[in-house]
Amino acid sequence: MASAKEKNKTTTLNWPIDSPEQLRQLPIEQLPEVCARLREILIDELSRNPGHFASSMGAVDITVALHYIYNTPYDRIVWDVGHQAYAHKLLTGRREQFSTNRTYGGLCGFPSPAESEYDTFAAGHASNSISAAHGMSVASRLQGDSPKRHVIAVIGDASISGGLAFEGLNNLAQSRDDVLIILNDNEMSIDHNVGALSRSLSRLNTSPRYNRIRYKTYMFLRKIGLVSDKIVGPLTRFNNSLKALLSRQQNVFEGLNIRYFGPFDGNDVKEVARILRDIKDMEGPKLLHLRTRKGHGYEPAESDPAHWHAPGKFDPQSGERLAASNADKWQDIFGKTLLTLAEHDPRIVGITAAMLSGTSMNILKDKMPERVFDVGISEGHAVTFAGGLAKEGLKPYVAIYSSFLQRAYDHIFHDIALNSLPVTLCIDRAGLVGEDGATHHGALDIAYLRTITGIIISAPSKADQLQRLMVTAENHDGPMAIRYPRGTAQGKAEQPPIEPWPIGKGEVIAEGTDLLFLTVGPISEEVKKAREILETKGIKAGHYDMVFISPLDENLMKKAASQGSEIITVEDGIRAGGFGSAVSEWLTDNGFNAAKVHRLGLPTDSFVPQGTPAQLYKHCSLDADSIAAKALSILGK
Amino acid sequence: MASAKEKNKTTTLNWPIDSPEQLRQLPIEQLPEVCARLREILIDELSRNPGHFASSMGAVDITVALHYIYNTPYDRIVWDVGHQAYAHKLLTGRREQFSTNRTYGGLCGFPSPAESEYDTFAAGHASNSISAAHGMSVASRLQGDSPKRHVIAVIGDASISGGLAFEGLNNLAQSRDDVLIILNDNEMSIDHNVGALSRSLSRLNTSPRYNRIRYKTYMFLRKIGLVSDKIVGPLTRFNNSLKALLSRQQNVFEGLNIRYFGPFDGNDVKEVARILRDIKDMEGPKLLHLRTRKGHGYEPAESDPAHWHAPGKFDPQSGERLAASNADKWQDIFGKTLLTLAEHDPRIVGITAAMLSGTSMNILKDKMPERVFDVGISEGHAVTFAGGLAKEGLKPYVAIYSSFLQRAYDHIFHDIALNSLPVTLCIDRAGLVGEDGATHHGALDIAYLRTITGIIISAPSKADQLQRLMVTAENHDGPMAIRYPRGTAQGKAEQPPIEPWPIGKGEVIAEGTDLLFLTVGPISEEVKKAREILETKGIKAGHYDMVFISPLDENLMKKAASQGSEIITVEDGIRAGGFGSAVSEWLTDNGFNAAKVHRLGLPTDSFVPQGTPAQLYKHCSLDADSIAAKALSILGK
Repeated sequence: MASAKEKNKTTTLNWPIDSPEQLRQLPIEQLPEVCARLREILIDELSRNPGHFASSMGAVDITVALHYIYNTPYDRIVWDVGHQAYAHKLLTGRREQFSTNRTYGGLCGFPSPAESEYDTFAAGHASNSISAAHGMSVASRLQGDSPKRHVIAVIGDASISGGLAFEGLNNLAQSRDDVLIILNDNEMSIDHNVGALSRSLSRLNTSPRYNRIRYKTYMFLRKIGLVSDKIVGPLTRFNNSLKALLSRQQNVFEGLNIRYFGPFDGNDVKEVARILRDIKDMEGPKLLHLRTRKGHGYEPAESDPAHWHAPGKFDPQSGERLAASNADKWQDIFGKTLLTLAEHDPRIVGITAAMLSGTSMNILKDKMPERVFDVGISEGHAVTFAGGLAKEGLKPYVAIYSSFLQRAYDHIFHDIALNSLPVTLCIDRAGLVGEDGATHHGALDIAYLRTITGIIISAPSKADQLQRLMVTAENHDGPMAIRYPRGTAQGKAEQPPIEPWPIGKGEVIAEGTDLLFLTVGPISEEVKKAREILETKGIKAGHYDMVFISPLDENLMKKAASQGSEIITVEDGIRAGGFGSAVSEWLTDNGFNAAKVHRLGLPTDSFVPQGTPAQLYKHCSLDADSIAAKALSILGK
Repeated sequence: MASAKEKNKTTTLNWPIDSPEQLRQLPIEQLPEVCARLREILIDELSRNPGHFASSMGAVDITVALHYIYNTPYDRIVWDVGHQAYAHKLLTGRREQFSTNRTYGGLCGFPSPAESEYDTFAAGHASNSISAAHGMSVASRLQGDSPKRHVIAVIGDASISGGLAFEGLNNLAQSRDDVLIILNDNEMSIDHNVGALSRSLSRLNTSPRYNRIRYKTYMFLRKIGLVSDKIVGPLTRFNNSLKALLSRQQNVFEGLNIRYFGPFDGNDVKEVARILRDIKDMEGPKLLHLRTRKGHGYEPAESDPAHWHAPGKFDPQSGERLAASNADKWQDIFGKTLLTLAEHDPRIVGITAAMLSGTSMNILKDKMPERVFDVGISEGHAVTFAGGLAKEGLKPYVAIYSSFLQRAYDHIFHDIALNSLPVTLCIDRAGLVGEDGATHHGALDIAYLRTITGIIISAPSKADQLQRLMVTAENHDGPMAIRYPRGTAQGKAEQPPIEPWPIGKGEVIAEGTDLLFLTVGPISEEVKKAREILETKGIKAGHYDMVFISPLDENLMKKAASQGSEIITVEDGIRAGGFGSAVSEWLTDNGFNAAKVHRLGLPTDSFVPQGTPAQLYKHCSLDADSIAAKALSILGK
C-alpha cells in the first residue's frame, strides 16, 4: 500500500540539483532518478577527465541518502579516502566546476576543507575518518551545540582494516559518543581485499530476510519501550544467540560494543534513506553495514571493477578504455626485476599494503603467490612483519607509495633500523605524483629517512639503476631504501644477470667548472635540459648524479668541494632536511665550504597542489627553465 | 589422584637456574618455587636498581611456563613492550649481570637482539609483537624449518589496543599461520586501561568452571577426532551460541576467526604450563588469554600497582618507596599550566595516549575529567582525534612522549598540518631519556617535524618559557609543537597571568665575539657551563637561546651571521636534518655564509644506549667539557 501511495506522488524531477537543501525538498521516490542523473554526469565527465571511477559510482546512493536525511553542512559527513566522494562534490555546489576535477587550479580529487564547507576533513590517506568524526562529535557535545550535530564517518571495507580505524573504533566504542559509521562494503580495495576482518564481513549474515526481521523487531521493541538506546542487553543477547546458531561468525563490531545494523543494499537509495531516518537519532556509536557494487550503474565497470578503479579516459558508449602509453613504468621495472631476483634467490619475498598492482608486485605474485604478501591497508604492519621475516633470514622487499609509507615511520625506526634488519623499502610514487595532489605527493621520504640511523637511501635516475640498486639491496645485510617516482622510467631495463650498483657511488653526468649540479633521481632529466640552456649562454655547468642520499659519494663530494664553484642541489623532495641539506651537512662536517650550496626542491611554506607533472615541476620551479634561471641568478647573470 | 602423585615427586630445587635447558629438566611441581626464587631476585635487585617492577613481577609465571614448554631459543618468544621480560632475562643466562640492568654499558631494560639470542625483536614501542611474530612464523614455514619452529607473541592488554596489534591480528588471522598470542591481561597499562576492547576483555566470561568445561570438552572432542584443527565449525558454533546466551559480550578475537582460550589464571604457573603443552601443536593462530596481577608476589605492589609500575628505589622489607626529588618536573609545569589555561579557556582540552600520569595530564583530569581524553596506546588516533576536535573549534593539547609520537608522523602531516588545524603537540621526554635507552630517546622529533609544512616548532629552556609557549599555542590558529625533556625543569614557574612568548623570538643569553653558540632547549645549561670554561681560556663566546626551531628568529640570525665568528649549534636531537641544519639552511637561503656552522647533536651513525643523563651527554659529547673542547678545536686552540 505504502508503495502504491508513494508511486502516486511521483512527479518530474527538477534537475539540476545543486545543493543538499534542494535535494531535501524532493519526495523520496525521486531519489533513484537523482542517483541516475549523478551517474550520467560521472560517466560523461570521467570518460573525458580521468579519475576514480568505480568507487565513486558505487557510493552515489549512499551520498544522496546522506545529504537527503542529514542537515549538511551543519551535520558533518567525514569521507574516508575521498575518491568515493565525487557525487558529494556534484551535489554540494561543484557540478559546474567538476570538469576541472584533479587538474591544476581545479577541484581537488579528494574532499578538501579549503574547497567547501561540506568537505569536513582531509581524506587522502585511509582509515582516519572514525577518529576525526569522533573528535568532531566530542567537540559538538562539549560545546553544547543545539540542535544536536550529527556526525557520520563513511569508510570503505578496505580502509577499515587500517590500524587507525581500529583505534578509532576502540575509543569511540568506549566513549559512547553519537557517531554513525557507514561501512561502504564493496568487497575490494584497489585490487581485492585482505585480512580476516574482510573475510568476516563477507560472512556476516547475508540473508536479507533475517536482517530485515532482526532490524524491524529491534525498531518495534524500541518503539514500545522494551529496549532503549541505553538498555540493549536483552535484545543483543537474543540477537547474538540467534546469530551464533545461524552462522559460525561472530561480529567484531558488536564485540567492541558498537551497535551493528546490516548488511543492507547500499545501492538502494530509498532503503538507505529510510534506514538512516530510522537510526538517525539513536544514541551511542552505531555501524551501518551497506553492501555496494563498485561501478554500479555502468555495466563495463561493474563486471571488471579492478580495472575501472581509475580507468583513465574511456568511450562512455562502448566502455572501451583508451590505451595509455606502453612505455615501461618505474613500477614495472621494479616488478619484473623483483621476479628475476626472486627466481634465483629463495630468500626474496615481496610485501605490499593494498598496492599489489599499483606497485606491480602482482608480477611476482602471479608466478610465486606464496612469496608475496599483500597485507591490505596496514603500512605499519607491512614494515614490522618484514622485520620479522628478515630476522629469520629472508630478504623482504616492501613496496609502498611514498606518502603512505609515512604511516610506518616509527616502524622503520624501531622494528627495522634499530636492529639493522635487511629489509628493502621500495618507495614507489616518490616525488610529485600529479593529479592526486597534496595528500599523495611523495615529498617527505628523503628527509624523514635521513633521521633514521643506518638506512642506506638511494634514488635511481634510470631504469637500469633501479635494477642494479635492487641487486645491491639483495647483497646488503641491513636496511636500504630505493625511491622512484610514478610514471615512465628513463632509460632501458637491462637483461639479467644484473650487476649490483656499488653502495655510495654516484656518477658524473657532465663536467663543467662554472657551476655544479648535484642531483638524485629522475629530476636529473630537467637538470640536463637546464645545462643545455646554460650552455647557450656560455656557461659550462657540471652535473653529478649522486644516486645515494646516504651515504653520499665521498670522492664526488670532495671533487665537488674542490671545484670551488657554486653548487646547486636539485631534488623532488622537500627542501627542509632533504638531499640538499645532506650535501650541505657533509660539506660542513668535513671542513669544506658549504656557503656555496643552493638547495632546490619542494617548497617548505606551502603544500604542492594537483596538476600534471609538468605543471607541478613549474609550480615548484623545478622545470629546466626555472632551474636555468635560478642558476643564472646565482651566478649574478 | 594426579595431584597426589605429583606432590610425591617433589624434590629440592637445584637453584640457580641459569638457562631454559636447566629449567626444562625440572618436574612441573618445582615451577612455583622457580617463580618464587625469580621474584625474590626481582624484589632484591629492583629495590636497589630501579626498573619496571610491577609488570615484570606479574609476568614471572608466564615466563617460566613458556621456557619450560617451548624449546627456546629455537622456538621464538616475542615480547611486546619488554619491561615485562625481566624474569626472561634472569632465566636466559643474565642473572649475574642483572644488577647492571638499565645502566650505562649494562643490560638493556628491554629485550635486545644484540644482547641475547633469546631476545628476538626490539620491544620498546608497544603493539609490534604480533606482526613481528607473524613474520618469523612465515619465514620458518617458507624455509621449511624442521622441527617446526613455534613462535609466541606475549602482549599486554594495553598494547593490544594499538592499531599495529590489530593490523597484525587481522593479517595473522587470515593467513592461518601457527602463531600463539599470549594476552597477558593485568587490566592496566601504566595508569589504567582504556578502550572498548579492554572493557570487552574484562567482560569475557570469567567463570573458571565454564572455561574449564569448555576447554576440556574441546580437548576431548579433538582427541576423539570429532573436531580437528582444520574443522572447527560445529564446536565454535556450539561455543558461541552457549556464550552468547551466557553473556552479552561477543569475542572480538573469535570475530576475527582466531581460536580463543581463556581467560585462565596467568599466575598459576603449573596451569599455564599444562595449557601451553596442550595447545602447543595445534595449527593456526591461537590466542591464550591469561589474567595476571601486576606486582604479583609482593603485597605492596599488588595493592597499588600503578605506583609500582616503575617505583624507583624501595625498602624490600617495608615496601616503603624512597622519595624522589620534589623539584618541579617539566611534565608538572606542563600539567599545572594546562589546568590554569583550561580554567579560563573553555576551548582547551587535553589528550594523551596511555601517559596520563607520565605527562602529568592527570592534573587537568582530576579537575575537569570531561575535558581530558586518554585514548590508550593509540598515538595515531590521539592526533587525528585532536584534528577532529580542532576542526570544530576546540584547542587540543596532545601530550605524548617524543619517541612514541613517531607513530603519529603521518597523522601530524595529513590530519593536522595539511589543513592547518590548531592542535598543540606537547612533546614530553624529548631528548635523552636516560635509563630506558635507544628505543625511548626523543631524538628525532625536531628533524621529522621540520619536514612538515606549517608547524611551529619550539623548545623551552626554562620552566616559565614552557608556560609562556603554552599560551602562545593557545593564541595561535595553527599547529604548534613544544618539546621538553624528562626530569627537573630549569628555572621557576610563573604565577598567572602568563604572557605569551612571541612566535619566532629567541633570547640573547650572552654576547661574545670570539664564537657564537646557538641552542634550543635545556641543553642551554651545558652551553652556559662550556662558556665559562672557555672564558677561563680567554675566549668570549656569545650564546643565543633561539627557543624556536621553526620559524627561526630572523633578527638574531642576521645578528649571528653578521658577527662573522664561527657558529656552534647545540641540540639534544639527531644531527641529520635537525636544529643545526635549520640554522645552516636559513643562512644559505638568505645569502649568508653557512660555512662557519658546526652542528653538535645526537650521533647519526649509532643509536644512543641507556645510562644516566650525565653519562649519555658525555657519550654524545654534549656535556660542557666536550662542548668546550670542541669549541677550542674549532678555534684551532
